[in-house]
Amino acid sequence: MLLNPSPLFYRYRKHREEYTVAKAKIALLGTGLMGAPMTRNLLKAGHEVQVWNRSIGKAEPLSADGAVVCQTPEAVVEGVDVVITMLSDGVAVSSLVNDENVTGAMKAGAVWIDMSSAKPEEARAQAAHLSGLGFAHLDAPVSGGTKGAEAGTLAIMVGGEESIFDQMETVLGAMGRPVHVGPSGSGQLSKLANQGIVAVTIAAVAEAMLLLEKGGADPAAVRNALKGGFADSTILQQHGARMTERDFVPGGLSKFQLKDLDNLLHESGGMGLTLPVAQMVRDRFDHFVHQMDGADLDHSGLYLELLAQNGDAA
Amino acid sequence: MLLNPSPLFYRYRKHREEYTVAKAKIALLGTGLMGAPMTRNLLKAGHEVQVWNRSIGKAEPLSADGAVVCQTPEAVVEGVDVVITMLSDGVAVSSLVNDENVTGAMKAGAVWIDMSSAKPEEARAQAAHLSGLGFAHLDAPVSGGTKGAEAGTLAIMVGGEESIFDQMETVLGAMGRPVHVGPSGSGQLSKLANQGIVAVTIAAVAEAMLLLEKGGADPAAVRNALKGGFADSTILQQHGARMTERDFVPGGLSKFQLKDLDNLLHESGGMGLTLPVAQMVRDRFDHFVHQMDGADLDHSGLYLELLAQNGDAA
Repeated sequence: MLLNPSPLFYRYRKHREEYTVAKAKIALLGTGLMGAPMTRNLLKAGHEVQVWNRSIGKAEPLSADGAVVCQTPEAVVEGVDVVITMLSDGVAVSSLVNDENVTGAMKAGAVWIDMSSAKPEEARAQAAHLSGLGFAHLDAPVSGGTKGAEAGTLAIMVGGEESIFDQMETVLGAMGRPVHVGPSGSGQLSKLANQGIVAVTIAAVAEAMLLLEKGGADPAAVRNALKGGFADSTILQQHGARMTERDFVPGGLSKFQLKDLDNLLHESGGMGLTLPVAQMVRDRFDHFVHQMDGADLDHSGLYLELLAQNGDAA
Repeated sequence: MLLNPSPLFYRYRKHREEYTVAKAKIALLGTGLMGAPMTRNLLKAGHEVQVWNRSIGKAEPLSADGAVVCQTPEAVVEGVDVVITMLSDGVAVSSLVNDENVTGAMKAGAVWIDMSSAKPEEARAQAAHLSGLGFAHLDAPVSGGTKGAEAGTLAIMVGGEESIFDQMETVLGAMGRPVHVGPSGSGQLSKLANQGIVAVTIAAVAEAMLLLEKGGADPAAVRNALKGGFADSTILQQHGARMTERDFVPGGLSKFQLKDLDNLLHESGGMGLTLPVAQMVRDRFDHFVHQMDGADLDHSGLYLELLAQNGDAA
């Protein structure tokens, strides 16, 4: 279908008056906190969407939005142009990719876009396996959380062949801002890079907030003063405020931050790379999650680990 | 003068039609890359400004903008309402604060605003010394560089008595966005916190850029993809690009970044605090500056230190 561009696709042709608005037939597997609003945005953009979820109760409400709810993975992928997975991890995605009943039900030329967060090596293995069966694959994890998913403003980091990205850009564009970042696995690598920057920035902001607090300055006033400058970031403003207010209701769970850092260091280790700051922050999240009951607290809770290092009960 | 608010001051009274626009008489000592454009913005705002600089040649061009150029520190502070210092460090400021010829020439009730970057303990000592002579003091270091100084958009972090800040807010407002952050020394403490966040964020971005580069993703595309998300910052966009392009023309010098981190850790150490990430990044800047000839390269050059840790000649 898409390798021979068809009127199925909404495609705006630059420098021409002419354009066609049409629908792709899409299967979305995994209608959780992210997948459900992403489905709604695909429907709003005019696509036909059929959905499946392991706990079918999470998929059923989407029928009111116009989605066709399917009972099995085999049923949901049948006859669609695009398969989108939004599952808990790469293992869950691989179990579908490697299920002959699933791939056997897919129509020739369909494209599989995995938008879950997974390891780059899992993405590459899935792409290779699907390629052997004649299917293209993109790894397209997202950043922006449930707010971004609802607003259709997700950052979408896409790895895979550029020609496939070009064909899928308008489908992805219904859910956020897709950017092609490199070959297969690069999307997942970018997501890991993103998570590493977030974790280390949290550690940086924690030390600044502690210094200000102990030094008698007003951290909220300083965050205000630093707005728009080199030290500014969403982490400084949002996570910094949570530290000062000791409000560690998630948000982003510390145990997931630890999992991301483990994946990051697994990947960098596989390349023979040393990333000293990410390693130090990973070890401190490990301590916070496993020795300080921090697993289900927001990742800004690394502040509590810093306080503990400084002999404070917080 | 200012302790008894006078029509000398431009003061916009909220919820009133009435306001007064008037001029303060200001001495600005230190008309370097920052002090010269700050002087111009004070003049534009309608203040009377007289200037002094140790190398008088740097002060003289400001006479064309309407500044009165003075030959000595004693001459420049005479009769002014506000003394502003913008010097290389706290030692240079203290030598003027502790010079009886200088303070002896100041008029009763004048306020000294030190906008240089200095140690919090230097700011507190200066404030205490001046207070004993009947003069108020604010420490008001800035962030935003020469661009911010020229545009009048500096972030100005102000420590000292709130009532003095209120009196000085419009004078400071001619140069940027002043925020009162706490008692004496808090402005300098905030600047150190700012510099610590900047240094650690550079280290975080360096690891992300290396991971992407070695993993075969396109770092520029990823920086684009991450725009507006949790990992985004001016450091990611600007310093990240310098790393990918191996362009370490300063910008912010690595030797000054090291000095800032030394001041930060001196201050935190004095409070008995451990700041593990700042300490690690300080040690790496120390290595970069002293073992890798990085002193006069941009602080994004920490990327070269990371490459060296990873056995690359860069």
